Amino acid sequence: MSQPIYDRIALIGLGLIASSMFWAIKRSGLAGEVTGYARSPETRNKAREIGLCDRICDSAVEAVEGADLVVLCVPVGAMGPVMQDIASALKPGATVSDVGSVKRNVIEAVLPHIPKGVHFVPAHPLAGTEHSGPESGFAELYDNRWCLLVPVEGSDPEAVARLRALWEGIGANVDEMEADHHDLVLAVTSHTPHLIAYTMVGVADDLRRVTDSEVIKYSAAGFRDFTRIAASDPTMWRDVFLSNKEATLEILGRFTEELFALQRAIRTGDGEHLHDYFTHTRAIRRGIIEAGQDTDAPDFGRGQSAAKTIGTEK
Amino acid sequence: MSQPIYDRIALIGLGLIASSMFWAIKRSGLAGEVTGYARSPETRNKAREIGLCDRICDSAVEAVEGADLVVLCVPVGAMGPVMQDIASALKPGATVSDVGSVKRNVIEAVLPHIPKGVHFVPAHPLAGTEHSGPESGFAELYDNRWCLLVPVEGSDPEAVARLRALWEGIGANVDEMEADHHDLVLAVTSHTPHLIAYTMVGVADDLRRVTDSEVIKYSAAGFRDFTRIAASDPTMWRDVFLSNKEATLEILGRFTEELFALQRAIRTGDGEHLHDYFTHTRAIRRGIIEAGQDTDAPDFGRGQSAAKTIGTEK
Repeated sequence: MSQPIYDRIALIGLGLIASSMFWAIKRSGLAGEVTGYARSPETRNKAREIGLCDRICDSAVEAVEGADLVVLCVPVGAMGPVMQDIASALKPGATVSDVGSVKRNVIEAVLPHIPKGVHFVPAHPLAGTEHSGPESGFAELYDNRWCLLVPVEGSDPEAVARLRALWEGIGANVDEMEADHHDLVLAVTSHTPHLIAYTMVGVADDLRRVTDSEVIKYSAAGFRDFTRIAASDPTMWRDVFLSNKEATLEILGRFTEELFALQRAIRTGDGEHLHDYFTHTRAIRRGIIEAGQDTDAPDFGRGQSAAKTIGTEK
Repeated sequence: MSQPIYDRIALIGLGLIASSMFWAIKRSGLAGEVTGYARSPETRNKAREIGLCDRICDSAVEAVEGADLVVLCVPVGAMGPVMQDIASALKPGATVSDVGSVKRNVIEAVLPHIPKGVHFVPAHPLAGTEHSGPESGFAELYDNRWCLLVPVEGSDPEAVARLRALWEGIGANVDEMEADHHDLVLAVTSHTPHLIAYTMVGVADDLRRVTDSEVIKYSAAGFRDFTRIAASDPTMWRDVFLSNKEATLEILGRFTEELFALQRAIRTGDGEHLHDYFTHTRAIRRGIIEAGQDTDAPDFGRGQSAAKTIGTEK
């Protein structure tokens, strides 16, 4: 058990990210008390039922009262309104942070409502699964994943250092990044891949000549990796695309340009172009394995558990 | 141990697919003897070194002599020439099969060279990993995966049934499908997803403002699932796209159409369109889990092994 880093932490929004934060904070004793609030009564009840947070409050204002750290864990589009709600209830000297996948837009929505004497340190933990909701969290989600801190102009260095200590205590590696650069990097590593995955899954579903059951039965050939990405929370992703519009559209433009070049190579039978392209992309995979951001086990090492799941079908 | 289904099986080409077949055949004693041949001497030596196949031959002709089943496990573009090579050495009554990811094109390349009295039963096991080469195989690769048989006009029902028994013995579920339909289904579930993944990885690599190291470090946000697909064997995939040109281009056309619609929704801020689309795609993921073709464990259950891999980095 570490020394508590904050006496009281309030988590606003209780989905995958917040619930995983809670279990990781508990694991290492990083806070004296963790309060929680979610807009829906069902979520609050579920949270109480499974012991999520030390205390679930029926209003955001109640949850943030006396908190040294308030973390906004709501979809990006809800950050501004939530912040407006809690502004007057914040303890002087407290830090407000968030976990949004987009930073420029969140900063613009949240910063104007931050009271004098309260610190705002935006953050973005790069971790997730295809599951959502208060029951989907687990303490290991952030272990060895990256959390990006995006301090705004005038962010108090001490408040930044304390938040860094929290995320390191949770298990993450921490980096700092400028907001616009963050949004471009994430457009490449996350937002555009998600949009593409959603699109491919939509295409598959839409094809009447290829029945649903065929698409599902034969998904192991590559398609199922797209479906995992495309099973992520719809509200969260709608907000991400609407609020990181510019960078996403830019990367999408690059993507279709490249795709058309490969499409043309297929049409004209230019095997050399295809082979060169495919050889080049292999090296990137190698880099990710070496950086410890994925497993080298074949098929993500899921063969075993998948086989178990379907033991009755054979 | 089952009863051997074939006295002698010859595997031509010794990559992931053939080597996994060998280990699965051994696991269940499905053949008296398995011979193997690969074009490159390095591959043949490696195979001998790791005990892959009962006997490695220095020519394809030698490997197929006396074989009751010959399985062509070479890239789709090499199937025709290899078949031409071995045609005169085939045992009367033998069955020739293949494992190519495209069927119409392979049938057109191979069938004209099949001697009278020899059966041709095309097949396609839907399984793979991002690894390739003789050392990448493992006996469990096909467990509960699908193998599609694509009998041609006049395929001997007994030869088909025997090949089915082999694949079931190897651990796969077996279905039969017509060649053109197979090529369309696979364009949706495999070929187009692969092309898209290759493209996205290429785009990421090409962006000078987002350094390689950032793309790799922050890949866990979605991108890394694309890199796994895009690490597959370049020669195999070049041949797949060149030989399933028509269906791939058709699905690609559908894909870009849908992508442009989503892109437009982002540009115009149509959140409802995005939310509806993303909600719909979730159901497909559910279907794949229920069909036993993937694990429901968060993040494919790879959290544990990935954490182990990088234990030293923290």
